[in-house]
Amino acid sequence: MTATSAFVTSLLTSFAIFCGLVLAFCILSKWKINHNIYYSSRMLAGIGPTRSAKQRNPFAWMKEAIMTPEAELVRIAGLDAAIYVNFFAAVLEIFSYSALFCIPVLIPIAVTSNHNAVAFKLDPNQTYEGFDNLAMGNVEEGTTKLWAFLLGTYWVSCVTYYVLVKHYKKMIHLRGKEQAHEKATPQQFACLIRDIPAPPKHMSRAQQVNAFFRKIHPDSYETCLIVTNVKKLMKLWGKYQATKKKLERAEAVYEQSKTTEKPEGTRPLHKKGFLGLFGAKVDSINFYVELVKDLALLVEAERQRTLKEEELPAAFVFFNNRKAAAEASQAVHAPYAMQWQVFPAPEPREVEWNNLAKTVHVRLVRQGLVYFAVFMTVVFYMIPIALISSLTTLDNLVKILPFLKIIVNYPPINTVLQAFLPQLALIVFMSLLPSLLMAFSRMEGIPSKSHLVRAASGKYFYFIVFNVFLGVTLFGTIFSSLAGFKELLNSSKFSISSVVTLFGSKLPPVAAYFITYVALQFFVGYGLELSRVIPLVVYHLKKRFLCKTEKELEEAWAPGPFTYETLVPADILILMISMAYSVIAPIILLFAILYYAIGYVVLRNQALNVYVPDFESGGRMWPHIHARIVVALFIGQITMMGYFGIKKFPYAVLVLILPLFTIFFASMCKMNYYPSFQVTSLAIASEDCKESPPLRKVVEAYTPECLLSEEAVYEDSDKFEDAASSIGSRSVSRSDSEIHNSNNTEDLYAL
Amino acid sequence: MTATSAFVTSLLTSFAIFCGLVLAFCILSKWKINHNIYYSSRMLAGIGPTRSAKQRNPFAWMKEAIMTPEAELVRIAGLDAAIYVNFFAAVLEIFSYSALFCIPVLIPIAVTSNHNAVAFKLDPNQTYEGFDNLAMGNVEEGTTKLWAFLLGTYWVSCVTYYVLVKHYKKMIHLRGKEQAHEKATPQQFACLIRDIPAPPKHMSRAQQVNAFFRKIHPDSYETCLIVTNVKKLMKLWGKYQATKKKLERAEAVYEQSKTTEKPEGTRPLHKKGFLGLFGAKVDSINFYVELVKDLALLVEAERQRTLKEEELPAAFVFFNNRKAAAEASQAVHAPYAMQWQVFPAPEPREVEWNNLAKTVHVRLVRQGLVYFAVFMTVVFYMIPIALISSLTTLDNLVKILPFLKIIVNYPPINTVLQAFLPQLALIVFMSLLPSLLMAFSRMEGIPSKSHLVRAASGKYFYFIVFNVFLGVTLFGTIFSSLAGFKELLNSSKFSISSVVTLFGSKLPPVAAYFITYVALQFFVGYGLELSRVIPLVVYHLKKRFLCKTEKELEEAWAPGPFTYETLVPADILILMISMAYSVIAPIILLFAILYYAIGYVVLRNQALNVYVPDFESGGRMWPHIHARIVVALFIGQITMMGYFGIKKFPYAVLVLILPLFTIFFASMCKMNYYPSFQVTSLAIASEDCKESPPLRKVVEAYTPECLLSEEAVYEDSDKFEDAASSIGSRSVSRSDSEIHNSNNTEDLYAL
Repeated sequence: MTATSAFVTSLLTSFAIFCGLVLAFCILSKWKINHNIYYSSRMLAGIGPTRSAKQRNPFAWMKEAIMTPEAELVRIAGLDAAIYVNFFAAVLEIFSYSALFCIPVLIPIAVTSNHNAVAFKLDPNQTYEGFDNLAMGNVEEGTTKLWAFLLGTYWVSCVTYYVLVKHYKKMIHLRGKEQAHEKATPQQFACLIRDIPAPPKHMSRAQQVNAFFRKIHPDSYETCLIVTNVKKLMKLWGKYQATKKKLERAEAVYEQSKTTEKPEGTRPLHKKGFLGLFGAKVDSINFYVELVKDLALLVEAERQRTLKEEELPAAFVFFNNRKAAAEASQAVHAPYAMQWQVFPAPEPREVEWNNLAKTVHVRLVRQGLVYFAVFMTVVFYMIPIALISSLTTLDNLVKILPFLKIIVNYPPINTVLQAFLPQLALIVFMSLLPSLLMAFSRMEGIPSKSHLVRAASGKYFYFIVFNVFLGVTLFGTIFSSLAGFKELLNSSKFSISSVVTLFGSKLPPVAAYFITYVALQFFVGYGLELSRVIPLVVYHLKKRFLCKTEKELEEAWAPGPFTYETLVPADILILMISMAYSVIAPIILLFAILYYAIGYVVLRNQALNVYVPDFESGGRMWPHIHARIVVALFIGQITMMGYFGIKKFPYAVLVLILPLFTIFFASMCKMNYYPSFQVTSLAIASEDCKESPPLRKVVEAYTPECLLSEEAVYEDSDKFEDAASSIGSRSVSRSDSEIHNSNNTEDLYAL
Repeated sequence: MTATSAFVTSLLTSFAIFCGLVLAFCILSKWKINHNIYYSSRMLAGIGPTRSAKQRNPFAWMKEAIMTPEAELVRIAGLDAAIYVNFFAAVLEIFSYSALFCIPVLIPIAVTSNHNAVAFKLDPNQTYEGFDNLAMGNVEEGTTKLWAFLLGTYWVSCVTYYVLVKHYKKMIHLRGKEQAHEKATPQQFACLIRDIPAPPKHMSRAQQVNAFFRKIHPDSYETCLIVTNVKKLMKLWGKYQATKKKLERAEAVYEQSKTTEKPEGTRPLHKKGFLGLFGAKVDSINFYVELVKDLALLVEAERQRTLKEEELPAAFVFFNNRKAAAEASQAVHAPYAMQWQVFPAPEPREVEWNNLAKTVHVRLVRQGLVYFAVFMTVVFYMIPIALISSLTTLDNLVKILPFLKIIVNYPPINTVLQAFLPQLALIVFMSLLPSLLMAFSRMEGIPSKSHLVRAASGKYFYFIVFNVFLGVTLFGTIFSSLAGFKELLNSSKFSISSVVTLFGSKLPPVAAYFITYVALQFFVGYGLELSRVIPLVVYHLKKRFLCKTEKELEEAWAPGPFTYETLVPADILILMISMAYSVIAPIILLFAILYYAIGYVVLRNQALNVYVPDFESGGRMWPHIHARIVVALFIGQITMMGYFGIKKFPYAVLVLILPLFTIFFASMCKMNYYPSFQVTSLAIASEDCKESPPLRKVVEAYTPECLLSEEAVYEDSDKFEDAASSIGSRSVSRSDSEIHNSNNTEDLYAL
């Protein structure tokens, strides 16, 4: 079997899997019992499945996914998801325009050349595939035909610049429209203050913050909320919530046991000891009722202590209009800029409470350490995998566990295991990686979850660029052995020019590998994504055997948000591969277009019907994606330089202009467009705002859930004053002398 | 004559010159006719020379220069000069602390070693000087003695970090105090707006700007001043001013000709034609009176046209309080951040009118081109110099001009000419360089003169680092021939590790050269600076032969400002050299301390008594200097790494931590301290301000001189309305409908 036929086989196989999964989706999504899985976000919103679910046409969902207008998408899925889907549209545009030139011009030139055939005649050891004749590798060295490929490089670059600018402007417009929305959100009135210096002796933190901001913003500053250390309280609160859930479950079990034959039911019992396996049997309901009561008291006591004793040098400050908050968040406040650092407040749901109070020096040191750790992870993560893979061969396994011999000797099983075992370590380690990178990012002291996601996505991007793209390119084969890594690490001649040459020389032979990779990614990946086979099975199993209460059932099908931290780097890897090969082997553009086109439809469907965002970052993922597209373009241009050099094209030096211009383009975009995503512009913040949340609601939104007491803390609820109001009054009562009229505030909002 | 004795000779010679010049200063500065030169700034302020000028003690000026308190220095010389002098104090502190360890510990270790003697025995071709025994080169390879030098490297680095942080804080404090000064300056109420989009059809630019800012800052925005293209007007205005000067001169000549013998005097005459050499003779006074009248009319007509037709997409906007202006200058205003870019307004005197309206894209492109041009200049500037030097040898000269033979053959003249001729091209080209770099910086589109100075200083820094420091280091000798450059350019093995090795191996042999360089710089340089021999001679010559009017006389002794663009890079070069050698040849520290100590005293004296700043940038030179000190430290650490490697010290790897930490330190300082210099913090801007200029004065300050009509435009003065008020009313009258009460404004200021 030649490489070409292997390629076609693998392509056809993935396509068959894809068709099967899409078919499964078309059928399964019509069944009512599956609506919770295929229309999760709509079910949560209580609006039921879309019209297409009731239509006969199995592809109606596609039309619906594509035709839903942009504004509707933003309204339903949020700006973050809309921008993610738009990223697919942008890349689709880049590759479509690129293909307009590369496929009809470059492929015929390659096919009509015969460098490969000549090389084969000269040295029959050199093998080439039919597929290779479609690529630049088949063009003779130093001929004028290479001008077409040079033109192709310029074409792809210019198209990318154009589309990127166009879409950046579109994204800014989308974000601006959301920010200027007449219905204001709490974060538009708040700023996050970090690095508050130690208060003077006679002042509390709240007094200090109030005094500082009242002096600077006498007309617009309202009040502050000091950040407290809620770690201990959070732990207790978690225990309290878990116990309440157990109580509900026990009650549900008791209700269900009341059948017509036995109307009094059976009160559930459980053992008190470890894992419910040891100890005395107790009545579950009575036991949990008591426990909940005790925990409620403990939580309340801890809450009071936290508010009093656990204040940290960070705070949220609140303003009476959007413009004042937007303006304050952009200005240096303290004479020493490292004190009183002001940031735009993250959305309340995405606040990382434990990171807020980390001081600037702690953040810097942690950042340094995390960067170092990430560098080590990126470079050396493959080593333990390779080691374990080499240890867990079938032969080794049989030596340790001789009884496996009988199974192993059966040929079909043997083949499967031989192929699968070395991958086992890879799969396990790779599935651990995103959480590890999230943990690393969290350690940096990042204050919001969306920023965490971006930081983790950036780290994952480095990882896959280094290990997949560079790994495959430089060593010809991925995850093969330690040898490749050793070569890289030992190479004392590692220099920029040698990397460029390597890029050029090693890239083309692996083009087929990458095309297979892209095809597999989109056929199998999107098939699984759309059909949601795994969540479906898990849901039905849980529903059948585990879930007792309504809440538990909802948790079983809750879709969660898009996991951008793994999705974005994977998409950009495909982009990077396709961009690097777009001129060398233009056929890859067809697969790239398919990947992004199918992705666009599938993800638009998922955004509209399935996933529910945990929080909104206001589309701040876009500059992150944009920068990485530019990096991909840059790597592609460097690759082309190297490859033109190998093809002995004397005008290859003309390509040099492109990477230089790309650097210029990147800095231009950063200067001109990035600020629009970093902050809220004053023109937007000054737009009329018809519906603002009252101050109390804003402050409440920024109070961690465990610091708010609930409506019903069982019998003792009236014993405690309402925590929210206590926080409101706290900052006010502690504020220096000035009397604070909250009615007045709400009047101002209404303006 | 050995190198050591040559070194001592050159040192003693320079010291003798220094003593002579200081003595000259001590004597000459007491003479009343020289007070304009030695106490220029005080004479301009009308307060006469300092007390020390009248004291007998010739060194009283020193005490005075040192003892004058910081606040006094800031008041008299401005913040920029105070910060420049403080930079000397900071470096002095770094080197003094460094010397505390390096001189008493490292020199004895070096002296008691005998690597040089052993090497000389083994290979008598290797020469070494007595001086070399004081340096690390004399320590045996791989011995434990090297630990002391490692410790020395850490000591110097830590001392530098400590002093830099301490002084950054001090500088921030100084700047903050100036900015919070109760007497407000015009720039504190203004912002510069660039990249204003095209106005809608029915609106003028002023209306557009007013509408935009009134909406965002309804309470604090006052008015705007649209920037106009004054190039043509400026040319006419210059001609007008020059003619007025000529008229004054003619009048003065006429007055002086009225002696007692001839009370009617002689009316001066001149020829109308080219250079006053051809054409008909005319009566100068009558001729210039007519010309001034004509030009005044032309200027006025052009002024009216400029105001109407030459509006540009940039403006100054004015606020009614300091905090509002400071806050606005830090915020993104437009939804698309590249439009309506807001910057803190530069001081009125330092505005670069022709650069204000350059749009962001023009600025970016120009910046790219200028960076490229500077790169070429830095790398290739020495080639024409070397070429011309090689052509203008004495032999060549004699071939061309044979009549010189007689002079040239006289031995002493021959020697001097031999030494001097090759330097001639160097001197001419080097004196052109600062103006060239200023022109480059101006092309970038920088809006203020102080920024221009910083940009030119940065470029000059690259130049001297590359050509002096690296040039000497890598090729052993400066400005020698083309060979060195060829070697650099042809070297295909140019890599980071080879540079590090070269640094280490080539540095020590040139230590003596650099010490001579430092000594020459401070002895001769500061001697000339203090004694002001050249300005003194020029002044007295001009006074005697050229100056007729009082104005001309003042121009003859006008001291001008410090030329930071050449001073700062030269000082930092000395710092860089000393830092690189501080551990390798600690004796250099003594010279560095002398350089900065003498510099501190001399420049403090000059700042207090001589130089008059053209403008104030609020000390923004400091972050620029700070960054370059950090770069110097970084280069020093890299040098040490290389040198430890050569000394075969196995723990050299420990030095690696230092450059990494330096990068961290630099980013930390940039993040934490730089914003305090970039903007005005709100806490400072909110300080009470007791004395504010009225709005009219602020707007007037930002109107180019040529756009303001004068009090007396000869007879026709009442024909033109007052230009200042016309500008004030212009922006007001064009503002959309809203009536603007300027009394109200001044009430607000008085708050």
